[in-house]
Amino acid sequence: MTFAAALQSSLAASFEFWIADSGTRLEDAAERVLPGAEDAPTRLHQAMRYAVLNGGKRVRPLLVFAAGEVTEAEVDALDRAALAVEFVHAYSLVHDDMPCMDNDVLRRGKPTVHVEFDEATAMLAGDALQAEAFKVLADGGLPASQTAALIRELAHASSTEGMCGGQALDLAAVGSTPTIAELERMHRMKTGALLKAAVLMGALSGRASLLTECTREALARYGEAIGLAFQIVDDCLDVEASTAELGKTAGKDAKHRKPTYASLLGAPAARAWSLRLRAQALQAIDGLGSSAQRLRELADFIVCRKS
Amino acid sequence: MTFAAALQSSLAASFEFWIADSGTRLEDAAERVLPGAEDAPTRLHQAMRYAVLNGGKRVRPLLVFAAGEVTEAEVDALDRAALAVEFVHAYSLVHDDMPCMDNDVLRRGKPTVHVEFDEATAMLAGDALQAEAFKVLADGGLPASQTAALIRELAHASSTEGMCGGQALDLAAVGSTPTIAELERMHRMKTGALLKAAVLMGALSGRASLLTECTREALARYGEAIGLAFQIVDDCLDVEASTAELGKTAGKDAKHRKPTYASLLGAPAARAWSLRLRAQALQAIDGLGSSAQRLRELADFIVCRKS
Repeated sequence: MTFAAALQSSLAASFEFWIADSGTRLEDAAERVLPGAEDAPTRLHQAMRYAVLNGGKRVRPLLVFAAGEVTEAEVDALDRAALAVEFVHAYSLVHDDMPCMDNDVLRRGKPTVHVEFDEATAMLAGDALQAEAFKVLADGGLPASQTAALIRELAHASSTEGMCGGQALDLAAVGSTPTIAELERMHRMKTGALLKAAVLMGALSGRASLLTECTREALARYGEAIGLAFQIVDDCLDVEASTAELGKTAGKDAKHRKPTYASLLGAPAARAWSLRLRAQALQAIDGLGSSAQRLRELADFIVCRKS
Repeated sequence: MTFAAALQSSLAASFEFWIADSGTRLEDAAERVLPGAEDAPTRLHQAMRYAVLNGGKRVRPLLVFAAGEVTEAEVDALDRAALAVEFVHAYSLVHDDMPCMDNDVLRRGKPTVHVEFDEATAMLAGDALQAEAFKVLADGGLPASQTAALIRELAHASSTEGMCGGQALDLAAVGSTPTIAELERMHRMKTGALLKAAVLMGALSGRASLLTECTREALARYGEAIGLAFQIVDDCLDVEASTAELGKTAGKDAKHRKPTYASLLGAPAARAWSLRLRAQALQAIDGLGSSAQRLRELADFIVCRKS
């Protein structure tokens, strides 16, 4: 093995370790912050914990942690930002899975929240997780200007400008054949906005002096590109992978007659598009040096993932 | 008419005017802040506007406006705090009315959101209104320390410590006979927490120098007493008033076998209890002088309302 190859392999191993370590760190933080399963109202608290503490991929927290390295953010601040984004993501999955939306029974290899508990509890657990997301930021010990900026970022990304708006466009698109531009807009809102927010919130959690306008702009462009790439890969996996591999029902999009990049372009062309977006993401943060190394590795992780 | 009686009547007229004016002011602010009905996703935006712009009683905004007088808060700051609380209240009504919760078809004399639109849109509209609540605070021009304090107050009141937790206890109590202490805890969380938050958020929107620890404590005690009184009166009205008077289905609690103050104590004893709480509320703010006049009038308004 050449020195370069050995270094490459050692770096890859270190990335694998970082991913695993970050996942554990997020679970531990959630375990501490979420209301206790034995505290009343127990059923609601259990449903919230069930929705979050399930070993998801934690892509959004990983983006928060990685972007935090750029501004040398402290661990506690990053944990809070990561939890906030993950709580919003978790609530959206709980609500999306409900019978009036996608009516899905399987998520991360386990029964969905409304199946394991009941619909009323699932709806409340989603509602409460959204409140918890803002609470964990508001209760953080950061200077108020940072706290307010973090909350602003999350609120906009979760609103009808972002995630909720994208969900509504997604609902409206069922059975239709949108243009690629329309599909892109929907994807950028539905998934991209929260992933971009994860990147910016990681950076906002650190030293303000390191977050120049130029760095912020670079991170925003990275977040936008990688956010769209993530959803395109999701579309492809829904076609390519099995339910066992995904831990959620495969082939959902076709079943629900949802237009996707895979259905509009075919999976190979969609894959090619995701690789171009990866290149754009990497180019955006080219000037950020070694502090952005985790973000570069995450770009590959997001595009090459198998579930 | 004696001078005292004339003064009383003129003050009462001025209160009536203030109520009407505050309602208009809230509607105008919501009209400006909510995403436009013609902007995509149109159906979602229409549902959000339908849920908010419906001439509700606006008790929470009135509490915000009244408490803001104590700390000489500016109009724009108060409008934002009032909108935030009202958006959270509106989202909770949209979700509570859905088939998996109370399954109600009538609200403020009109079809509920899931009836007028559909269940998926109603769920999303509720989710988006919660995000909008935090957005309207985060986007306000107040100093960051005030913004963060307002958001902290709202997030806690909306969480499982407050509204969502109370809803869960309410669900769990169906068909049971709780003790008065258990019912009180549920009511304090389900409704009381957000009403108390409305009072504190009004005060937090103004001059920090006027919000001494002592004033804050007085307002918190007022908010707690009036918050519980509000829900007790709600319980009584559900038994005493007609659907036409309420603009929502009367007799719901008995139909859903929900324990209430009216069912546990009987309406007359519950009414008496609400009057004692009114007295406690007034006593709490006794030292605040004329700046708390609207809060005093609101205590009467809340306890004596007919719908």
